[in-house]
Amino acid sequence: MFANRVDQIQPFRVMEVLERAAYHEALGRRVVHLEVGEPDFETAAPIVAAGQQALREGKTKYTPATGIPELRRAIVGHYKKMGVTVNEEQIVVTSGASGGLTLLAALLLNPGDELLITDPGYPCNEVFTRLAGGVPVTMAVNANQKFQPTAAGVEMHWQQRTKGVLLASPANPTGTMLAADTLEEIARSVRQRGGFFILDEIYQGLTIEAPYQTGLQISQDLYVLNSFSKFFGMTGWRLGWLVVPQPAIEAITKLAQNLFISPSTPAQYAALAAFTPAAMAIHDARAATFVARAELLAQGLLKLGFSIPVRPEGAFYLYVDVSHTGLAARDFCWRLLDEFQVATTPGEDFGQHMHERFVRFAYTTDEASIQVGLQRIEQALQAWGVV
Amino acid sequence: MFANRVDQIQPFRVMEVLERAAYHEALGRRVVHLEVGEPDFETAAPIVAAGQQALREGKTKYTPATGIPELRRAIVGHYKKMGVTVNEEQIVVTSGASGGLTLLAALLLNPGDELLITDPGYPCNEVFTRLAGGVPVTMAVNANQKFQPTAAGVEMHWQQRTKGVLLASPANPTGTMLAADTLEEIARSVRQRGGFFILDEIYQGLTIEAPYQTGLQISQDLYVLNSFSKFFGMTGWRLGWLVVPQPAIEAITKLAQNLFISPSTPAQYAALAAFTPAAMAIHDARAATFVARAELLAQGLLKLGFSIPVRPEGAFYLYVDVSHTGLAARDFCWRLLDEFQVATTPGEDFGQHMHERFVRFAYTTDEASIQVGLQRIEQALQAWGVV
Repeated sequence: MFANRVDQIQPFRVMEVLERAAYHEALGRRVVHLEVGEPDFETAAPIVAAGQQALREGKTKYTPATGIPELRRAIVGHYKKMGVTVNEEQIVVTSGASGGLTLLAALLLNPGDELLITDPGYPCNEVFTRLAGGVPVTMAVNANQKFQPTAAGVEMHWQQRTKGVLLASPANPTGTMLAADTLEEIARSVRQRGGFFILDEIYQGLTIEAPYQTGLQISQDLYVLNSFSKFFGMTGWRLGWLVVPQPAIEAITKLAQNLFISPSTPAQYAALAAFTPAAMAIHDARAATFVARAELLAQGLLKLGFSIPVRPEGAFYLYVDVSHTGLAARDFCWRLLDEFQVATTPGEDFGQHMHERFVRFAYTTDEASIQVGLQRIEQALQAWGVV
Repeated sequence: MFANRVDQIQPFRVMEVLERAAYHEALGRRVVHLEVGEPDFETAAPIVAAGQQALREGKTKYTPATGIPELRRAIVGHYKKMGVTVNEEQIVVTSGASGGLTLLAALLLNPGDELLITDPGYPCNEVFTRLAGGVPVTMAVNANQKFQPTAAGVEMHWQQRTKGVLLASPANPTGTMLAADTLEEIARSVRQRGGFFILDEIYQGLTIEAPYQTGLQISQDLYVLNSFSKFFGMTGWRLGWLVVPQPAIEAITKLAQNLFISPSTPAQYAALAAFTPAAMAIHDARAATFVARAELLAQGLLKLGFSIPVRPEGAFYLYVDVSHTGLAARDFCWRLLDEFQVATTPGEDFGQHMHERFVRFAYTTDEASIQVGLQRIEQALQAWGVV
């Protein structure tokens, strides 16, 4: 009845988690939320103020499809601070990173073309691939490689119909970054094969001792995916951007005109304030908060006997091996929520590879709540006879 | 190098028109804009105020993928006033009608599936079809059928791989509506074939003696595409909605979660005010303004010898036969702009069928400007020896 891609979409377990959490909250119980992939902070005041001003000034009409020139220039300036020169035409402002993925799938994939992605990884990548009729091919990645592929791994998976690779650094659900030399090797290998390399950097800035700030410091022919959602705290505004190689500008502009008309106008004017010193100070402080939370949560979980095979270098997730509990990840998540009201996301939402062992803990809640969560997890382990 | 669909996209001539208009304006010349498919009004004050309030209240996080319940309920109420009962689950709030078209293409089209559309028609429909790997099949529609297909025409074009039909009522670029009995016949015919019927109603409310307010008054199993851009004057906010048949709810919800996460949060809260009596009074007054402009522009063009084979029943366009000028539509547009600074859109932006004869005049500018435009067109015809 519907297109085949519909049946190929895995349901998000986290949606059931959210519903069940809401059920407990409706009964008056406090739920500790460690499942949500959204910063708990509201959008920083200078950005909100800029949004309000834009509305006062009647900035409610369409803009150019690839974004207002001022914002594209501000993004160029953002890269300049990292020592990277891109020009304004390479910047495509999008309706969230989601809009960017639609554009890249439309630009790069014919029906039947294969795209290499990681397992575990961001689950929607498969759906964007299938949107364009493409075929997602997963590369299982392991803790001993920081849940990132090697160049040899990419080459091994590269077949006749493979057109490109999509990697994330830092990645969801693991928070790990692709090492600089691996990134360079993969870029070289993909270039030799005439393929494309999409690098998802939507967690840029939310990093802990990052080996680089952007992959563009290492390779210039990447398609870079970015977002105002995470570091800049603008999730609900739906705004992101792409940096595309020079030869792609004309084609992606045509696609953006046809598929989006333009990104949100109030959001674009608001985002102009995101790069101001006042806003950046807020974002940097928040990034530091995430680092502290990561430490708190990781130490607490380790103390309780959990294994965190790779410490994240960014984002706001810990990918935690729960096998010492004797429970499969899904049962662990469900019982922890239902019996102790701590919400987490089971590994199966991020792929098939060893998902029974892993649970994603998001530290998108304050330290006091994380403490409560840790206490409840300790109680859970005692109740279940694990400790 | 890029996906095949990129080469299949026709460039918008109107982009060249806009660039050339900007060139003249940069030289200090006044351009009369009859090319723009966007209302000249700013978003109504109650909506802007609601958007500002949403920002003050920190409404900047993700919402449910299909929209906030309050807005879905408000849309249900909008249909209730038309005597149509739809339930909240059937409403999918989208990132503009563009987002709606992406979702419908993803839901309904496998690679190779054919979708019937009209020529002339909204040019981006082809691109959304190709986004999902589908094949747009155009049905030439003529003035003697009000530029709308008949049921027999749809049946004639329906082949082995045809999965559905996408029609617009009122349509762009002609402003004509599908007659009620034709709509019913096509719906029946499509149902018998097990196909789907998408009805684009993004110009709903901007009508002149409409035979119906929504196709849902005639057939319940339509996929209805709508938008806050036109009647509600919210172009730059990027917000629209779908009404989908009950069986499609689960599948389209999954797609919306994966492909969009959620529509713009500030826009959704702003749009809640769009249905209030205060805002509706403004929208209705604007709709009346468009009716008056249509009359002014049509009378003026007819007096100058142009032929308007079908008077529009809605939207804000006249599709005008310029053949008495002896110029092909493209040359007419270019010379009118370059020599007399009146901007219009040539028929080729809307398809291949008789496009050399037709030009779209959009009355998205005030009456005084329309008067100036008409005077300049008269001068042009004199200068070119037509009158």
